[in-house]
Amino acid sequence: MSPKITTELLKHLRQVMKNPRYVQEPVQAYIVPSGDAHQSEYIAPCDCRRAFISGFDGSAGTAIVTEQHAAMWTDGRYFLQAAHQMDSNWTLMKMGLKDTPTQEDWLVSVLPEGSKVGVDPFIIPADQWKRMSKVLRSAGHDLVPVKENLIDTIWTDCPQRPCKPLITLNLSYTGVSWRDKIVALRSKMAERKVMWFVVTALDEVAWLFNLRGSDVEYNPVFFAYAVIGMNTIRLFIDGDRMMDPAVREHLQLDSTLEPEFKIQVMPYGSILSELQAVGAGLSPKEKVWLSDKASYALTEAIPKAYRYLTPYTPICIAKAVKNAAETEGMRRAHIKDAVALCELFNWLEKEVPKGTVTEIVAADKAEEFRSQQKDFVELSFATISSTGPNGAIIHYKPVPETNRTLSVNEIYLLDSGAQYKDGTTDVTRTMHFGTPSAYEKECFTYVLKGHIAVSAAIFPNGTKGHLLDSFARSALWDCGLDYLHGTGHGVGAFLNVHEGPCGISYKTFADEPLEAGMIVSDEPGYYEDGSFGIRIENVVLVIPAETKYNFKNRGSLTFEPLTLVPIQTKMIDVNLLTEKE
Amino acid sequence: MSPKITTELLKHLRQVMKNPRYVQEPVQAYIVPSGDAHQSEYIAPCDCRRAFISGFDGSAGTAIVTEQHAAMWTDGRYFLQAAHQMDSNWTLMKMGLKDTPTQEDWLVSVLPEGSKVGVDPFIIPADQWKRMSKVLRSAGHDLVPVKENLIDTIWTDCPQRPCKPLITLNLSYTGVSWRDKIVALRSKMAERKVMWFVVTALDEVAWLFNLRGSDVEYNPVFFAYAVIGMNTIRLFIDGDRMMDPAVREHLQLDSTLEPEFKIQVMPYGSILSELQAVGAGLSPKEKVWLSDKASYALTEAIPKAYRYLTPYTPICIAKAVKNAAETEGMRRAHIKDAVALCELFNWLEKEVPKGTVTEIVAADKAEEFRSQQKDFVELSFATISSTGPNGAIIHYKPVPETNRTLSVNEIYLLDSGAQYKDGTTDVTRTMHFGTPSAYEKECFTYVLKGHIAVSAAIFPNGTKGHLLDSFARSALWDCGLDYLHGTGHGVGAFLNVHEGPCGISYKTFADEPLEAGMIVSDEPGYYEDGSFGIRIENVVLVIPAETKYNFKNRGSLTFEPLTLVPIQTKMIDVNLLTEKE
Repeated sequence: MSPKITTELLKHLRQVMKNPRYVQEPVQAYIVPSGDAHQSEYIAPCDCRRAFISGFDGSAGTAIVTEQHAAMWTDGRYFLQAAHQMDSNWTLMKMGLKDTPTQEDWLVSVLPEGSKVGVDPFIIPADQWKRMSKVLRSAGHDLVPVKENLIDTIWTDCPQRPCKPLITLNLSYTGVSWRDKIVALRSKMAERKVMWFVVTALDEVAWLFNLRGSDVEYNPVFFAYAVIGMNTIRLFIDGDRMMDPAVREHLQLDSTLEPEFKIQVMPYGSILSELQAVGAGLSPKEKVWLSDKASYALTEAIPKAYRYLTPYTPICIAKAVKNAAETEGMRRAHIKDAVALCELFNWLEKEVPKGTVTEIVAADKAEEFRSQQKDFVELSFATISSTGPNGAIIHYKPVPETNRTLSVNEIYLLDSGAQYKDGTTDVTRTMHFGTPSAYEKECFTYVLKGHIAVSAAIFPNGTKGHLLDSFARSALWDCGLDYLHGTGHGVGAFLNVHEGPCGISYKTFADEPLEAGMIVSDEPGYYEDGSFGIRIENVVLVIPAETKYNFKNRGSLTFEPLTLVPIQTKMIDVNLLTEKE
Repeated sequence: MSPKITTELLKHLRQVMKNPRYVQEPVQAYIVPSGDAHQSEYIAPCDCRRAFISGFDGSAGTAIVTEQHAAMWTDGRYFLQAAHQMDSNWTLMKMGLKDTPTQEDWLVSVLPEGSKVGVDPFIIPADQWKRMSKVLRSAGHDLVPVKENLIDTIWTDCPQRPCKPLITLNLSYTGVSWRDKIVALRSKMAERKVMWFVVTALDEVAWLFNLRGSDVEYNPVFFAYAVIGMNTIRLFIDGDRMMDPAVREHLQLDSTLEPEFKIQVMPYGSILSELQAVGAGLSPKEKVWLSDKASYALTEAIPKAYRYLTPYTPICIAKAVKNAAETEGMRRAHIKDAVALCELFNWLEKEVPKGTVTEIVAADKAEEFRSQQKDFVELSFATISSTGPNGAIIHYKPVPETNRTLSVNEIYLLDSGAQYKDGTTDVTRTMHFGTPSAYEKECFTYVLKGHIAVSAAIFPNGTKGHLLDSFARSALWDCGLDYLHGTGHGVGAFLNVHEGPCGISYKTFADEPLEAGMIVSDEPGYYEDGSFGIRIENVVLVIPAETKYNFKNRGSLTFEPLTLVPIQTKMIDVNLLTEKE
């Protein structure tokens, strides 16, 4: 990897930072965050602005360019990669290290008095704007919204925003019609006494309308917003895709409908002006519900007194609790996924000893077997196919420069998943094609004990997932081992492989309680730097548990594995397991 | 219990709320919080203003009196008690129930436009002021500080603020001299670039100067503040107690000392004016460090730009990590405490069958045995002596109206502790003087399994206590049982029996990581309403653990029990225990 040469680009950016065509007043600093206008985890190529300006294309990072400096904040996963990908114009700001200043503090330390700091108000979440703006203001500077994205003005070969055809999902997949979802949403709105709800997250729009897309790789979503009133539905979306007869039929665009279910289709780009019009027309006590992670631009469109902000939207919470149709779909998807991986493992058992299977070959073969399954759509994330020391790099993705050949001497870790029309999968298995060492088996068995401890945990209704995280670590801790990531994340039903509002991690506290029907991953691991990585991951469904005393009718929950992929028994030291395990 | 008649008192209070002698402008509402000026958990009789005005004397509650209404907010522990103790002038606001308004929202709903809401700025913590003030302001009202406490103006027989003699602790108890503590504090101040530190919590003042008092029952503290500069030490304290030659000698008040260790003794009441003088004399970049729980009055004395607020002060954190002398003292205290309780249990075994031992008699006997031990000072909290159904009331304290006789038919729960000059104890044992039922033994054994799981837990350095809470519940959860309180709290060394910044609870997230030398309680329980209560509590010391792989030299921790009181084997169903347990 050679670094991207950014001297000319930065010069150009610094020019537009002063160009009255783009900025009302010159800005002395410009912030380029990672995200898109929907605060997505995975973004489309046209939104990779931070990678364009800096060369650093990891999943997390914020660039700030001033007249003198260019600095990049990223976390421990990416220190090495960022250092390789960026040229000497850039200073790497290692987040999490003691002496690394925050973006705000750094800005205060380098800016001349009374500076303006610009940012695209569509990309920065409102809560982050508030925090930065406060610090800057108290130091005599101003955070200002720059309407036109300055990176876009200098990105001459910027890819177009994707606008691919939509998939309609019928009741056999979704269990609930979009009409009924709107009815349920309006009843939540009535409960909180809000008149409008603004849908900003892409997976929330997709879920609400029982539509899927392919605008973002791995995530079956499409660029759109929606604004739901008590009597109106507005969908903001571009392109020919609304001309598709299947979509028109699905959304009943050409039917005579009660007015409150009539969908008004509007251009994607008109969301701000439409929302401003909503904001201007509010009478006292008419509140508008937004996620507190929505963009500053959309949040500001609603006068402060009328905003109702929550960390999790009612759609996020409803979407997390899968109904019977979705659960059955997830079960079918996991059966198919297990068939594909069994075929892969069989193939690997035969081919690995020949010394011709690389990490990339194995990943491609996994995709090939999966793609033969019914209703396969695409992968659900970039396959982590890693052998030996590469397995210890938690967010590894094989590329030609690092591609290692699988052998009978090293542990192989495969973390992969797919989008099927009936469900999303995400599974990690760790295996050995020769004879694992006693130490490797020992570590594997502790990870397995942690995996089982979470999977078999029984807990009262109302328990938050973060309270289960230590169960996954206990066996490792007893021997002085640990892993530096959370234990589980929410999983969508033919939607994003990572979704809120639940999870199992020592890092979160604001997660919503687990409920029957929620689906999460259970994936403890152990990583020996420079040597091997172990992770055992199932996707598990939260189900009611039967207990002797039933928490005085408060009820209780446990997990049922949806993942059916076998775990390699060769890796287990059975002597370390209890009878129950 | 008959309710306190408050008609005249409220009339009187409403008069002073309009009396220009006490308020600059009339206030339409007056808030009476629970606390004292130091945000203490336990308060002196002169600070029980909320109990005086309302009759309700539970440990938590806030009263608000307007021209028309008088309302009391308290939590589920006290709904019954508050309803009994208050007359019909008062409306009980049940916190935690869905329909109960917050204090701010209620005020907004009942106040006439543009009202003033008064509160004693010394009693309300700055963070709470900020929250309330914001809501009130956005509804057109004002929260205003009322300098003279309005309850004090009508409380004609208000007890005097205690001002009892001090105890000096030498190095054999404290391990570190107050001079060395000041040096360490100043080095923490230099690290954070602050010039002043304001000590507002009573136990922090006591710890810093190696002094103890008895101004507040159960807590060996005394009313004082301190302001530590880089070159000055100011101690704000009243009374003759500074005339005591032992205290003068201990603080070296009459010695020739380097100026930076010379303690200036000032009147307790002069803290505000002195702090305002400090605030007025600050040059740019001179910060003042305060707890974010300090009173609004003291926080406001420092201009906003100069404040450095943290949730835990450096003293709070240093105090929590006990040194060798303190640890040895705690060990001695626990040996003495165990001797006293063994004597008690022996006495109970003989006396209970006679039917003459009530909960109060047993509590008194426990105190009698403890008071015979060397260096006994007082109890560390009100003894919870409860039999049968009273055991299920978690914060029970026997009073003549509820006093129950111990018998061979009921479970007896004793949660008690003492202050010895060398350490603080807190122990709960649950026992049966006849034959416990299979169900009682089953529940007891699950609680014991949880207690052992925490006590034997091994975890990496840097782990926060809240991550261990679920270990205490796992065995109960498996059978559908749980308990609705945290598992452990920090314990002082001859100081408050509850102290921060560490603990073991599902409720906290902002706790500081556990460190070797910290001391916490381990007290899971199970409560069957109307029937019995079970709790098993040890005080445990955080110690380094030895593990096979030692977390790659990150190191690890576990607990060592300091409590040596036997656990009644009769209550254990041994079949439910594992070999290791």
